[in-house]
Amino acid sequence: MADPVSPPSDLDRQMAFLMEADRLKSITRATQLADGSRDENSAEHSWHLTLFALTLAPQAPPGVSIDRVIRMLILHDIVEIDAGDAPIYGDTSTQVADELAAADRIFALLPDTQAREFRALWDEFEAAATPDATFAKALDRFQPPNLNLANGGGSWTAYNVTEDQVRNRIGSKIERGAPTLWAWLGPKIAKFFTDP
Amino acid sequence: MADPVSPPSDLDRQMAFLMEADRLKSITRATQLADGSRDENSAEHSWHLTLFALTLAPQAPPGVSIDRVIRMLILHDIVEIDAGDAPIYGDTSTQVADELAAADRIFALLPDTQAREFRALWDEFEAAATPDATFAKALDRFQPPNLNLANGGGSWTAYNVTEDQVRNRIGSKIERGAPTLWAWLGPKIAKFFTDP
Ligand SMILES: [Ca+2]
Repeated sequence: MADPVSPPSDLDRQMAFLMEADRLKSITRATQLADGSRDENSAEHSWHLTLFALTLAPQAPPGVSIDRVIRMLILHDIVEIDAGDAPIYGDTSTQVADELAAADRIFALLPDTQAREFRALWDEFEAAATPDATFAKALDRFQPPNLNLANGGGSWTAYNVTEDQVRNRIGSKIERGAPTLWAWLGPKIAKFFTDP
Repeated sequence: MADPVSPPSDLDRQMAFLMEADRLKSITRATQLADGSRDENSAEHSWHLTLFALTLAPQAPPGVSIDRVIRMLILHDIVEIDAGDAPIYGDTSTQVADELAAADRIFALLPDTQAREFRALWDEFEAAATPDATFAKALDRFQPPNLNLANGGGSWTAYNVTEDQVRNRIGSKIERGAPTLWAWLGPKIAKFFTDP
């Protein structure tokens, strides 16, 4: 007869989730660091976004809860452990289905109540319909062009992106969630493409 | 006569701080990733700690504000941009002075009110005297041994560390700020050193 084995405790499940999450440090993005030395990974990108949220809180529209935005940004890319990063100027045909399957698997590592709570935050971010999610999405679109401007082109150069594509893919989302940030960034992008 | 130049706006200063912070991605730590593939950097470590705080919130002692803990953890290593990472088992003789000088320089990039607010959070974390800071510090000590256990020794092996040193340097701080986490981890560490 096999020895009786106690089921995993809540803490065992929380730790299984946290150790699985470590793999996000090995998911690379299309964006390079500000100094151009290497590609950014999704874990350090997520940290940078939480710092953007904390620092740019005074730029958030009224009614935004920065603490909820930060919680969303901590979790927003965790599905990339399974699904990989989808470069914004690349092919994303299966990305939505891949990310939903990843969310099902990864959040299920947690105790049930927490799994539902984290999944709800991730779903809210993805839907980008609430003020918190709209601001969080705007920050996710605002950080990479700042790295590109710092390192001399980055993913724009790698993907042969035009100024119109930048305005359509990211400008509209930044302007919607964080108008003062787009007012600041738009002219810098225009200058880069006019006079690189 | 020189052209008049307008002083940097609050947003200009916030962005200067955020782009300087990008350098934290290039500060490597003594700890390796869970899969042992490379050293961890301080930016992705900071993200991992915010996820620890969010996930282990049910393990926090009563009265701890997880949102304040997360804010501290986002900021806690930013001084390493100038001061580097101080391995917990290495030589740390000038580390305190180096980190204070770094805090003076880096937070001063921000608008004044925000500089004071971020510095106060960082000072609170360093002093480890409030419930929020004590829990944040406990998480900062709790994450690396979990990586070491996952990758087969990591910084313990590299620094020839004994079980007593682990208990003295990290065990006491984890037990103080997060007793249930130390109750979970302590036996795993004992087993590693007894039967690696
Ligand atoms: Ca992403």
